[in-house]
Amino acid sequence: MEHPATSVDVEPPVTVQGAGELETLARILPRLPRGSRTDLGPGDDAAVVSAPDGRFVVTTDLMVHGPDFRLAWSSPYDLGWKAAASNLADVAAMGAVPTALVVALAVPGETPVADLEALADGLRDACAVMAPGCGVVGGDLSVSATLTIAVTAFGDLEGRRPVTRDGASAGDVVAVSGPLGRAARGLALLFRLGVDHDGAPDAVAAAGLRGRDPDVGWQLAPTPPVADGPLAARAGATAMLDLSDGLALDAGRVARASGVVIDLDSGSLGADPTAALSGGEDHSLFATFPPDSLLPGGFRAIGTVRAADPGSPPVTVDGVDPGATGGWDPYRRWSGDRG
Amino acid sequence: MEHPATSVDVEPPVTVQGAGELETLARILPRLPRGSRTDLGPGDDAAVVSAPDGRFVVTTDLMVHGPDFRLAWSSPYDLGWKAAASNLADVAAMGAVPTALVVALAVPGETPVADLEALADGLRDACAVMAPGCGVVGGDLSVSATLTIAVTAFGDLEGRRPVTRDGASAGDVVAVSGPLGRAARGLALLFRLGVDHDGAPDAVAAAGLRGRDPDVGWQLAPTPPVADGPLAARAGATAMLDLSDGLALDAGRVARASGVVIDLDSGSLGADPTAALSGGEDHSLFATFPPDSLLPGGFRAIGTVRAADPGSPPVTVDGVDPGATGGWDPYRRWSGDRG
Repeated sequence: MEHPATSVDVEPPVTVQGAGELETLARILPRLPRGSRTDLGPGDDAAVVSAPDGRFVVTTDLMVHGPDFRLAWSSPYDLGWKAAASNLADVAAMGAVPTALVVALAVPGETPVADLEALADGLRDACAVMAPGCGVVGGDLSVSATLTIAVTAFGDLEGRRPVTRDGASAGDVVAVSGPLGRAARGLALLFRLGVDHDGAPDAVAAAGLRGRDPDVGWQLAPTPPVADGPLAARAGATAMLDLSDGLALDAGRVARASGVVIDLDSGSLGADPTAALSGGEDHSLFATFPPDSLLPGGFRAIGTVRAADPGSPPVTVDGVDPGATGGWDPYRRWSGDRG
Repeated sequence: MEHPATSVDVEPPVTVQGAGELETLARILPRLPRGSRTDLGPGDDAAVVSAPDGRFVVTTDLMVHGPDFRLAWSSPYDLGWKAAASNLADVAAMGAVPTALVVALAVPGETPVADLEALADGLRDACAVMAPGCGVVGGDLSVSATLTIAVTAFGDLEGRRPVTRDGASAGDVVAVSGPLGRAARGLALLFRLGVDHDGAPDAVAAAGLRGRDPDVGWQLAPTPPVADGPLAARAGATAMLDLSDGLALDAGRVARASGVVIDLDSGSLGADPTAALSGGEDHSLFATFPPDSLLPGGFRAIGTVRAADPGSPPVTVDGVDPGATGGWDPYRRWSGDRG
């Protein structure tokens, strides 16, 4: 009796090196969204994107295998999704509506073309869910020993001033849209349980963990509240940023830029305030609003802006300095031998 | 008697890992040009750039250590210069005036901060020479085992239509601004003479070579004729691109997109027409102009656009198919063990 699973010839996957740059691009490009603001899409020396109010918002971000993600944990689809999500959140944090992305990839030659198709699908679906109408208008494809994804994202301010970090005033309401500490809890779970007996990242363990715990999914493919960025701007937000390095560190940036103290209410930081303060990569939106504002979208109040005295800590919790809570600095935290 | 050269304590250089992300950025950012079109520069979630005609041109490009450059040959200043130059040429090839760059770097933690300062100086000087008023408005800094530079560049079309690849018509003049085959000749010299006895890239040999041969300098830090892009657009260029993969391959792209034959005049291809046809990375501008046009800036005529018959080769030289001349495909050409 034959065993089909062992007698069938398995074709090796077509790799980027085998297909070459042009065929690889021909397979990826049709999967990407054109976008409603795209005057000229991929295929020429450059794309052309409309900027109806005569300005555009731009942010850029690199994701590198090792410090920023591990292929044992993140699928190619996750990587495309997360690369889009983190950049869309930065555009939203200015109060802008995302209009377009460009994506440059550097991948090992042995990468299956199917992986890049999945990555493109992740970019496409993230745009469709978080920023409908946002297109992927251009890119670049290079070979590298280290898988690297560079996304640059654009947005339209619709005639409004950008919401920067320096506009918070004493008396303003401090608010957040999206989770606090969830991505970091997911990452801690992966480091603890998404590994094999030697502590190396393990795909099977991680997949099981992801099915059981939504925080793991938020770490691998977050869905920040992108639409709440323009809503906050329309509602009069005085300062805003996206929470990429943890609430304490990022709130401190607003406090320092604005010359105020951000006082957080411990009762609004969830069951584990320390994790809420220190956990990075949530890409939730942090904003301040004038007193008595009706908070828009998914924003909830978590504190109050206070006047700064000489020597004030930038961030307090219930009026008290919570002490150093650290933050994500890739040069200090990453250890190459962790996988 | 003391020998000062051996008795002085030499401080080890401050590395990116030692300085951390914030201090490294604090040393790089002041060296970058602000730009005349920058509404909001680095320091917030995103930058804001003006786009006076309600559109912007955008192109992105990755440079990766190994396939795209070798640190034994290219200085950090060269890398910054070349990363800017190749992207500025893409913007110019649409007929646009460069307005801004964003630059994302992924570098090994042991990289001296001084190297990133030199890279920033290269970006700054390239903008000053090729695109005055163009600013570096944002960026990102990550750690990676593989030095990677991702530049995204923007331009202003000043109300004109973009000059794409598909507009060439029979009878048009074929013209080029900038050298043909020079960067490839420089690279061939480096592979032949910029190496040690084992064939590994060698900094001392390369530096000597560069002093003797300007083609080596064009390979490591080219100065494409960026200002000639908008000049060509104003003069009525019907199609344009930047020569990154060699004249034969790039002219073939215009021919196919436009449905024509590009017939080149061998007498205008210099002493080595084969090198002119196949050599990549010059970043010269290739354009077609209506018959009897006065060619602007540095453009010189090198051929004529002909009507295509069924089965015509896309590119001919003196009316004859020059055969396959190849082109730059990083997945097919790069071998990791070449240094």
